[in-house]
Amino acid sequence: MGLIVQKFGGTSVADIDKIKNVAKRVSKTYTQGNDVVVILSAMAGVTDGLIQMASQISERPVKREMDVLLATGEQTTAALLAMTLESMKYPAQSLLGFQAEVKTDCAFGNARILDIGAGRIKELIDKKKIVVIAGFQGCDADGNITTLGRGGSDTSAVAIAAALKADVCEIYTDVDGVYTTDPNICSKARKLSRVAYDEMLEMASLGAKVLQIRSVEFAKKYNVPVHVRSSFTEEEGTMVVNEDNDMERLMVSGITCSKNDARILVKGVPDQPGIAAKVLTPISDAGIVVDMIIQSSPKNGTNDIAFTVPRTEFKAAMEIEERVAKEIGAKCVQGDEGIAKISVVGVGMKSHAGVAATMFRTLAAENINIRMISTSEIHISCVIVEKYAELAVRSLHTAFGLDKI
Amino acid sequence: MGLIVQKFGGTSVADIDKIKNVAKRVSKTYTQGNDVVVILSAMAGVTDGLIQMASQISERPVKREMDVLLATGEQTTAALLAMTLESMKYPAQSLLGFQAEVKTDCAFGNARILDIGAGRIKELIDKKKIVVIAGFQGCDADGNITTLGRGGSDTSAVAIAAALKADVCEIYTDVDGVYTTDPNICSKARKLSRVAYDEMLEMASLGAKVLQIRSVEFAKKYNVPVHVRSSFTEEEGTMVVNEDNDMERLMVSGITCSKNDARILVKGVPDQPGIAAKVLTPISDAGIVVDMIIQSSPKNGTNDIAFTVPRTEFKAAMEIEERVAKEIGAKCVQGDEGIAKISVVGVGMKSHAGVAATMFRTLAAENINIRMISTSEIHISCVIVEKYAELAVRSLHTAFGLDKI
Repeated sequence: MGLIVQKFGGTSVADIDKIKNVAKRVSKTYTQGNDVVVILSAMAGVTDGLIQMASQISERPVKREMDVLLATGEQTTAALLAMTLESMKYPAQSLLGFQAEVKTDCAFGNARILDIGAGRIKELIDKKKIVVIAGFQGCDADGNITTLGRGGSDTSAVAIAAALKADVCEIYTDVDGVYTTDPNICSKARKLSRVAYDEMLEMASLGAKVLQIRSVEFAKKYNVPVHVRSSFTEEEGTMVVNEDNDMERLMVSGITCSKNDARILVKGVPDQPGIAAKVLTPISDAGIVVDMIIQSSPKNGTNDIAFTVPRTEFKAAMEIEERVAKEIGAKCVQGDEGIAKISVVGVGMKSHAGVAATMFRTLAAENINIRMISTSEIHISCVIVEKYAELAVRSLHTAFGLDKI
Repeated sequence: MGLIVQKFGGTSVADIDKIKNVAKRVSKTYTQGNDVVVILSAMAGVTDGLIQMASQISERPVKREMDVLLATGEQTTAALLAMTLESMKYPAQSLLGFQAEVKTDCAFGNARILDIGAGRIKELIDKKKIVVIAGFQGCDADGNITTLGRGGSDTSAVAIAAALKADVCEIYTDVDGVYTTDPNICSKARKLSRVAYDEMLEMASLGAKVLQIRSVEFAKKYNVPVHVRSSFTEEEGTMVVNEDNDMERLMVSGITCSKNDARILVKGVPDQPGIAAKVLTPISDAGIVVDMIIQSSPKNGTNDIAFTVPRTEFKAAMEIEERVAKEIGAKCVQGDEGIAKISVVGVGMKSHAGVAATMFRTLAAENINIRMISTSEIHISCVIVEKYAELAVRSLHTAFGLDKI
């Protein structure tokens, strides 16, 4: 018996029958004597439908109103689930973001949770109610509705679990756990029974779509055990927890693949101090996040600077760099949207040598050229031509001994 | 130049193109130098769709959650219109019920507005923003979302206009004003240029669907001039205002027809003091509103008691009366769903004799039997067999000189 936070994603609440299934699962946990707090996403497809509707009005709808619009999705599912539980004679009550006191900054569309005043939630728990909270939404200091960005319901769930000091935060989704890589790309992908917060962080930031990265940051910061599992089976999923000794036995825990980036190459940049800042500051000023950056060694007094940006921002970034190139007297700007970023991730890397070498050798054996490389303590990423992405993932999966037996 | 509240109904915001039209109209009023506050309904059909969804969960979904669900309809249109205005470069901001401080009691599904703390609205007006408010919704003292019942956006609009001391509250709808009767029934129906609050109140309560009755009560109480007009034309509609001398020239201003009632007749009730209370108290205890009540003169120590209830409550009311009849020793209970209530309304009745006589004579000339009669200072209603309803309306319309020339 304990306090359990359960989060259900969009595919788990896609229609009334699925919502009834969620109600069964929630009520089972409740009947076992647990306090239960449920966080919900919008029905699958609803958020996209709302975005599509707004796009008929404006290419760039004003963000404050976009959040008011999008928040209806989670409001709908929260009401429907509370209603379903009540119709099954379980005491339940929905709370919207502002009612659950999910306080955020005012970065509409991508707000950060600042604080959760868990008073009202606790009050309802004390009354033995199942509390059903609309995920993805909060409100700022002025009472405006905010949303937390794609996958934000994960963050809602973990943050609320942290605020309530819940025993576990269960993330129910349409996959049954965290895999060594995307099973759609590699049929030999294995489900991990445990994964460290840091590994999960890297995987999330490198393209694995299981959990929103901020939710993992929250989980790590407040030490919330997160259980990623399927809403369609009873099977155990993957526990995301603090690093432990067992985990280090494996060099690499997972392979990720992201096709969300584009590469921009500014050629013939004069080799002067501060020139990289001149190339990159206008990009960040435009609110575009740069991921990897490579500066070549100077040659004939000039450098090449290459960097990656989200593919959605590629056009905007190219326009900026073409202007910048003229101003600083660079030779030319080349862009490439057809890239993929393949990464190997594992806390085991800290104590195993040769991971990079194995990675480069494996890609070379498949005749795959590496265009950019970046590393951290627990990951190595390579940018390659997009069409080789799946081959690279499968080869690395085998090379690092991750294949299912 | 002044402060104008504009309310748009569901058909006026039924799709993105219609919302763009609303934005044009709103921005025109704003460009003329007025402060503008807009109140919106949900897109036509959306509320019914949500009700249908809830009905898949439960025949009687818990009301608190129903309100959370229904409130998404107006939230959506408010966000979309604010977004549209912003994309046209007009400063706009949406407010939900709780943000606009629409404070209600906690009668979920049919809440009454207790107070509107217009602070936030005024703040935005002072910043020259067009304020777009989600109608139909408010929140109770505990911060729960409430809704105001069918047509509640009218009430939102008038109550907000009253709180802001607006110069006029314009109700944009799919008809171009208040008619002497339903033009779908009587092709000779005329648009009224002015109608008194009291007449409008009677018409609304007697079946005219133009305005929610509570909105007229608010308008009368706070003396808010209401302008009912079409969102699809530029024509003037009908002003709902204080009674003036002009209005009294006409005996009758309108004919209404309601098919929303059913009649229950309890026959052979023992003629004892307090027996009517015994018959009717169980009905009101069940939350069913009784409209007309007729008690016959006693004959052989027994009475007949007839009354009408909303047709939606007919079955429940019949069950109650069959039980009551046994308890009090009444002879039998008869029910009839096939009735219509035809009413003539007019403040002119106060100073004109013979309205009732004209009404009865007109119906008699068409061989229409009157089953029940009720009257007030400014209306007379007759219950007749449903199939004669349209004929009765047309005959009375001619008899009272209301036909279009």
